[in-house]
Amino acid sequence: MKRIGMLTSGGDCQALNAAMRGVGKCLFNSGERVEIYGFLEGYKGLIYGNFRMLASTDFSGILTKGGTILGSSRTPFKQIKEPDENGIDKVDAMKQNYHKLRLDCLVILGGNGTHKTANLLREEGLNVVTLPKTIDNDLWGTDMTFGFQSAVNIATEAIDCIHTTAASHGRVFIVEVMGHKVGFLTLNSGIAGGADIILIPEIPYDIDKIIHKIEERSKNGRRFTILAVAEGAISKEDSKLSKKEYKEKLKNYKFPSVSYEIAQQIREKTGRDVRVTVPGHTQRGGSPCPYDRVFASRLGSEAGKMVLDGEYGCMVGYKNREIVKVPLEEVAGKLKMVSPDSGVVREAKMLGISFGD
Amino acid sequence: MKRIGMLTSGGDCQALNAAMRGVGKCLFNSGERVEIYGFLEGYKGLIYGNFRMLASTDFSGILTKGGTILGSSRTPFKQIKEPDENGIDKVDAMKQNYHKLRLDCLVILGGNGTHKTANLLREEGLNVVTLPKTIDNDLWGTDMTFGFQSAVNIATEAIDCIHTTAASHGRVFIVEVMGHKVGFLTLNSGIAGGADIILIPEIPYDIDKIIHKIEERSKNGRRFTILAVAEGAISKEDSKLSKKEYKEKLKNYKFPSVSYEIAQQIREKTGRDVRVTVPGHTQRGGSPCPYDRVFASRLGSEAGKMVLDGEYGCMVGYKNREIVKVPLEEVAGKLKMVSPDSGVVREAKMLGISFGD
Amino acid sequence: MKRIGMLTSGGDCQALNAAMRGVGKCLFNSGERVEIYGFLEGYKGLIYGNFRMLASTDFSGILTKGGTILGSSRTPFKQIKEPDENGIDKVDAMKQNYHKLRLDCLVILGGNGTHKTANLLREEGLNVVTLPKTIDNDLWGTDMTFGFQSAVNIATEAIDCIHTTAASHGRVFIVEVMGHKVGFLTLNSGIAGGADIILIPEIPYDIDKIIHKIEERSKNGRRFTILAVAEGAISKEDSKLSKKEYKEKLKNYKFPSVSYEIAQQIREKTGRDVRVTVPGHTQRGGSPCPYDRVFASRLGSEAGKMVLDGEYGCMVGYKNREIVKVPLEEVAGKLKMVSPDSGVVREAKMLGISFGD
Amino acid sequence: MKRIGMLTSGGDCQALNAAMRGVGKCLFNSGERVEIYGFLEGYKGLIYGNFRMLASTDFSGILTKGGTILGSSRTPFKQIKEPDENGIDKVDAMKQNYHKLRLDCLVILGGNGTHKTANLLREEGLNVVTLPKTIDNDLWGTDMTFGFQSAVNIATEAIDCIHTTAASHGRVFIVEVMGHKVGFLTLNSGIAGGADIILIPEIPYDIDKIIHKIEERSKNGRRFTILAVAEGAISKEDSKLSKKEYKEKLKNYKFPSVSYEIAQQIREKTGRDVRVTVPGHTQRGGSPCPYDRVFASRLGSEAGKMVLDGEYGCMVGYKNREIVKVPLEEVAGKLKMVSPDSGVVREAKMLGISFGD
Repeated sequence: MKRIGMLTSGGDCQALNAAMRGVGKCLFNSGERVEIYGFLEGYKGLIYGNFRMLASTDFSGILTKGGTILGSSRTPFKQIKEPDENGIDKVDAMKQNYHKLRLDCLVILGGNGTHKTANLLREEGLNVVTLPKTIDNDLWGTDMTFGFQSAVNIATEAIDCIHTTAASHGRVFIVEVMGHKVGFLTLNSGIAGGADIILIPEIPYDIDKIIHKIEERSKNGRRFTILAVAEGAISKEDSKLSKKEYKEKLKNYKFPSVSYEIAQQIREKTGRDVRVTVPGHTQRGGSPCPYDRVFASRLGSEAGKMVLDGEYGCMVGYKNREIVKVPLEEVAGKLKMVSPDSGVVREAKMLGISFGD
Repeated sequence: MKRIGMLTSGGDCQALNAAMRGVGKCLFNSGERVEIYGFLEGYKGLIYGNFRMLASTDFSGILTKGGTILGSSRTPFKQIKEPDENGIDKVDAMKQNYHKLRLDCLVILGGNGTHKTANLLREEGLNVVTLPKTIDNDLWGTDMTFGFQSAVNIATEAIDCIHTTAASHGRVFIVEVMGHKVGFLTLNSGIAGGADIILIPEIPYDIDKIIHKIEERSKNGRRFTILAVAEGAISKEDSKLSKKEYKEKLKNYKFPSVSYEIAQQIREKTGRDVRVTVPGHTQRGGSPCPYDRVFASRLGSEAGKMVLDGEYGCMVGYKNREIVKVPLEEVAGKLKMVSPDSGVVREAKMLGISFGD
Repeated sequence: MKRIGMLTSGGDCQALNAAMRGVGKCLFNSGERVEIYGFLEGYKGLIYGNFRMLASTDFSGILTKGGTILGSSRTPFKQIKEPDENGIDKVDAMKQNYHKLRLDCLVILGGNGTHKTANLLREEGLNVVTLPKTIDNDLWGTDMTFGFQSAVNIATEAIDCIHTTAASHGRVFIVEVMGHKVGFLTLNSGIAGGADIILIPEIPYDIDKIIHKIEERSKNGRRFTILAVAEGAISKEDSKLSKKEYKEKLKNYKFPSVSYEIAQQIREKTGRDVRVTVPGHTQRGGSPCPYDRVFASRLGSEAGKMVLDGEYGCMVGYKNREIVKVPLEEVAGKLKMVSPDSGVVREAKMLGISFGD
Repeated sequence: MKRIGMLTSGGDCQALNAAMRGVGKCLFNSGERVEIYGFLEGYKGLIYGNFRMLASTDFSGILTKGGTILGSSRTPFKQIKEPDENGIDKVDAMKQNYHKLRLDCLVILGGNGTHKTANLLREEGLNVVTLPKTIDNDLWGTDMTFGFQSAVNIATEAIDCIHTTAASHGRVFIVEVMGHKVGFLTLNSGIAGGADIILIPEIPYDIDKIIHKIEERSKNGRRFTILAVAEGAISKEDSKLSKKEYKEKLKNYKFPSVSYEIAQQIREKTGRDVRVTVPGHTQRGGSPCPYDRVFASRLGSEAGKMVLDGEYGCMVGYKNREIVKVPLEEVAGKLKMVSPDSGVVREAKMLGISFGD
């Protein structure tokens, strides 16, 4: 008999349910007796003992369903070690609930913040298996995260739609894609959507290079230009600021986001009609794409097996098309980023895409 | 032999190409000799004699293509009677180009502004046939305009995506839908997306009614609330201002749009996490949906027939599922709006949707 | 207090759940006390007293869900007046269950067969309100049925996909669209998909006219031809047979369907590579499109109101963009068909589409 | 100055245009003078000297376009070494046209058959660079082929649609997925669509195991079962036949395909209502998905670079997320298949999916 706790934490994304279904199906099909406790709204549920039992039927019909049947929250990530407003020690509370329910293991689905906390719980002696969830694909130790490909699809659809309207009106259009620190999502949806300029946090831009690309296109008879810009795109000057200085600068920012500043600069320097579109949270929502469904199902299934085998302390990752186990201490606190020298960036440049560098 | 000028004017939308294809196929299939002059970038092309001949093959393969192969612009709408920066009289220029090319007729695709100008050209003695294009469905004299249903689909998809993320995080989410003066698009995508609150220009809202609805849902165990808000949503107080006063108010507005103001008010009054998503120009873009393709093809085909029959001075409209001819003087300058007493609003209210009134 | 029975009968389609949600939301929001008994698998559930109580929450989250939460069946339609294998009189059994549960009314969602039975129950003294469900849009008394537009979308997508492969290989491609007796679905998806030839039951075809169209396209440099063919397409000769003779002929048919026969004839007469694709039951499935969601919600909401008002014996229909009540005796036993002289057929022909007539 | 011939051969698929665009953009952006000769309808165009020059603009706007702008054919694959009906030696003709146009290299996009011919041309002394195109993902030497993920999406959508209708009616449904020799497409769309049983050529099935799975689901209260069946699915008995014996058997086959035979067996052994749906050629068509657009663009771009660098005789493949060069002699004549012991099959089984083995 296995008693498993399960929770989804951090910003939600597609295929969370598909992954949990994978775990659940694997466990319930194994022949072993299992009890699954679903903690509600991420670590919050574990801290405050808020859970519901998940039966085999709870995992039916959720493969294609967006969001998470358990709810999620960003609590407590940064304040993990501070007591809550009632003075409760969060880590202690989580440990107590874990032991009170006599759990054999926690299955935790989340991104970077989630993995830090998961690793902390591991260090505190809890058994943990994690699954790599994020539309940013920025988790260390795995080639891919679920949610990413679905988000690429939504961002690409937005660029596709903008393409026809930009072409009709001869405009410069900026599509702001999610990603504060890492540019995989912008890079992939930018290439897929046929963007002419792609700006990502890993490759600081020079506004004059951007202007030059727009003017060059114009000279070649192209009436419009599409920019795919990550939320965290940064200019060369700003990239030289210290983290603290840059935060300070953003505080007094007059634009809703950097895309609007870039738009303003292009407007001023070229006199062109520039528009900004922000698909925003739609990128996290909706039904997972088939790629993510397969991928999350595979990961979930192997996570179930690890639970059955008593192999704890690992994230279920993906390397060279096979599922692998990655020790949590290797994952936590690291960020996987786009390398400016990587094949895909070089190939994008050969296609004529400018990174503004 | 018929010589036809064709142009697309105003904000672009889906199925413009499908409609032009309908006109072109009808004309080229008619057996009569035809020459079609496509003016580029709306009335601008007609003013400055910027056109290209359209052959039969130009209308092939464009049924599913978004945007407009002729380009569009909002010129000259408001300044129609003012000379341009070189002192050229725009109306005169259009008439001269029409006569110079010995055109029998202009086929003009556009929305409200476009129809005003089209009617002016008719009054000036030009032969005109128009087609009702707009994602707003706000043209007088027709039950439907092409572009509308495609835009409903895109706005609905956005709400669908937001639904899963709102549910996962227990948030209040505002999806801002296009429509400054008219709420058909918001109303339909709101119902289709299962929005809980729909705010449209025709039904001024009371922020307390909105708060009440959110709190009521919360009491009934619903963790989230979705608002579909038209760009032109207006509060009861603001609706009492004169047009001039309201314009003045918007000038000094600290929010990017009214959705952000509503979000701020909900935040302040409920303490909840409120997010805004603005699909923006994506609503005008992409491939037309099958409904719009059929509808635009039918309209285009009948417009072609009107040209062949020498029936001018009309918009090709849609009434009770049949294509009809609507005299341009009846269309120009009027706006079709959502009636607060209409069946669809009453039905939405019976479903439990609040309009904040 | 109102006690309502609800059931979905006949071939399933999109937006059945959306329509039931409309009824349920209207009733539960009305303030009146209501009990809703959901009979399982269509009339079968009513005959054998197989039902489950539907709570307010059962109608949550099903707006976008395909299929029917109650299940459906084609029972008993044709054998309605024959006793079942255990000698039970079906009509009697339905009446008994209705009275045993002290129902005020039945809300029945279905197509033609379903409406015949619904009308029979009305004649037997039961209170009935019906909703027009069918992908065929062939119900008398309403301009539109829900499911239709979603099915048009799926059939059109199939034609879109076939378009690119047909063009690449220079093939003749037949897409077989659902519809044994009525051609609305084929007509609309054919126009939307840019089919060159559309064959529907209402317009018998002459194979030589089809061949001629294919050869004519070839002469004009078009390497491929797409046919959208209804399941019930019929040749001119066969249309002269009596119903009985035609049934007899089909019994000994060597082809899976008429599309394959047409393919074979084209192959033999032109030597071309001809392929057949049958999207089949996919046309009934999947999430309803926004149009159907709005439409079914509106119908459901008005059906709920009729139940509250005690207005029985009607189908909730759609005329001139408003919801109307249509007496069941006017609906039952009639079929709405494509008129060969209708505007849409004339317009399709002006576009150059051949109907093989 | 580089003179390049380009052709697409074999069954068409998504992203062929995206890949050619990648090659073209890379070449035209390189600064070097290039001439690109596009041969029409595959090797046929090369044999008979049927080509058109491709300008830079020919590669614009085709990223999202399905099919191939060059057309394709399956000629001459098997009869490559036989003279054509006019006695022309095909290989000789291709060599002559290659030399007559003074080509530096051929860029060939295709699948298995295409690669055999490409390798033959290489052996004959021509410079060749190839790109791996096939919805089957069965090319040796590359982890992925373009077209595959788009086809997975279409097949999965079909299963999704069938899911709702199967559930509504309590039916057994077979979705026949493309793939005569290799099961990757069925395996992935089956997992993504939540199929209960997946039958692929690599894992021969036992009909009794299938029946058992259906009955077991029924006992567990599931009213329906979905099978994803590859075109080339084969029973254990048939898999013991020699290739010749099996071909002979298929010749006298009374079913359109093996799916129909399996359906008949299930019907006979269980008395259930079993339906078959065949999405067929739709799986090759339509716009490529974002994954394929990125992937094909990357491959195309690297192929362009290989041409510029004079590196010939290779297929541009994909290994461990990087683009690699694979010698053509290693690729030609081999088939990549699903290993019954692979991770994904094991994981699918842990999810409870039966392979009928």
